[in-house]
Amino acid sequence: MQRWKLTLEYDGGPYVGWQRQDNGQTVQQRLEEAAEKLCGCETLVQGAGRTDSGVHALAQVAHVDIAKDLRASQVRDALNFHLRPDPISILEAEPVPDDFHARFSAIGRVYLYRILNRRPPPALDSGKVWHNQRPLDAEAMHEAAQALIGNHDFTSFRSTECQADSPVKTMDRVRVRRAGEEIHVDVAARSFLHNQVRIIVGTLELVGRGKWTPHMVKKALDAKSRSAAGPTAPPGGLYLVSVKYPDEEE
Amino acid sequence: MQRWKLTLEYDGGPYVGWQRQDNGQTVQQRLEEAAEKLCGCETLVQGAGRTDSGVHALAQVAHVDIAKDLRASQVRDALNFHLRPDPISILEAEPVPDDFHARFSAIGRVYLYRILNRRPPPALDSGKVWHNQRPLDAEAMHEAAQALIGNHDFTSFRSTECQADSPVKTMDRVRVRRAGEEIHVDVAARSFLHNQVRIIVGTLELVGRGKWTPHMVKKALDAKSRSAAGPTAPPGGLYLVSVKYPDEEE
Repeated sequence: MQRWKLTLEYDGGPYVGWQRQDNGQTVQQRLEEAAEKLCGCETLVQGAGRTDSGVHALAQVAHVDIAKDLRASQVRDALNFHLRPDPISILEAEPVPDDFHARFSAIGRVYLYRILNRRPPPALDSGKVWHNQRPLDAEAMHEAAQALIGNHDFTSFRSTECQADSPVKTMDRVRVRRAGEEIHVDVAARSFLHNQVRIIVGTLELVGRGKWTPHMVKKALDAKSRSAAGPTAPPGGLYLVSVKYPDEEE
Repeated sequence: MQRWKLTLEYDGGPYVGWQRQDNGQTVQQRLEEAAEKLCGCETLVQGAGRTDSGVHALAQVAHVDIAKDLRASQVRDALNFHLRPDPISILEAEPVPDDFHARFSAIGRVYLYRILNRRPPPALDSGKVWHNQRPLDAEAMHEAAQALIGNHDFTSFRSTECQADSPVKTMDRVRVRRAGEEIHVDVAARSFLHNQVRIIVGTLELVGRGKWTPHMVKKALDAKSRSAAGPTAPPGGLYLVSVKYPDEEE
């Protein structure tokens, strides 16, 4: 039995999310079906980030055990073959020790949120950005976001359905910058609460359009109540960019 | 009656091309339907570039006459309203004199061709790139492409169904460069023959993978025969990037 670390890209649009559930197709389920075709046995795929319905990944990480003697390129290519025609692509397969766990071994996660900030709707990036027609001040959003850096109780910034034991997390980076017609929010932490990035973005948007002063984000954090923060930004703008493990260099 | 210059973005995937035809939906037809809903009369939309089925546009230009007194923002927003949910977006509407013609007034066109040059298939950019698994040498492709610059008979590089009177065109720029996992081919000319960019890319790909020496592209051009050049690259990687008119600055 060999454990494989898989790095994968996917379009979250057609799925009800990463995690296997009863109400529709999930990325995890499609990967398990592909892995079962490859090894001819039951498999369990574990992912580093349980992305929601409609959320994309540039480099999600997962692991799976396969009871077959295969080269890394065979695992990658065979899984991609069995995943067709789904918009899920295995970028890399690497053999890892049995104690590697995609979720529990991870020590850092990076997300990107893309806002298309213009009046006309997206044509080529439909479902891949949050189309927001209000003129947004990226600098004010960035300034406001700095109050979130560090170790805090993020109760205001997690879904009321979040099942994490503790609302305390350490935010390493929240960077907001304009890139042409888009605004990019780049967020890094060891781990995140349910909907945390999307609530952060939905709250910073209130600052961007001048409804909130930057200082109000700090007050929302201090309130420790979901109703104190802004709305949850739509899923299509969110991308899981990378997952970091202890043995990797910066 | 006011003539409007429209700048528009579209995903060519769902269409049989720009130009109105009998065998399926076209971008021109969808625009004419939207313009007819706006003005309550028959309209004719003329485009600068007659993109093929599956070819995209970042900034196609078209013109249409509308017998109604409207502001530019009203024309843009109303057309976008009537175009929903199609992946066609009017980026800008500008009033122009009656002698402006999107196609015949144009003095320059720029196209971009995107090759995704890696083993795993695209997940997020499916239908938006040419997925090419062979390792390609972008520098050799660029070197070979320089033989195409200037005024030439491009018979070898046009579809056998091309209806242009003359195969002679002046190529201003063919630039090939690697951008991470992608190879970008950036092409500029006053105007192009049918399939010209896609045949250029399909030919340069032979150089990129080492099947052809760079010098063979020059020989293919000199042969003045379609069969002397390479295959036609697939449509999904091609983007009409911009169209230039005499009154505009560089």
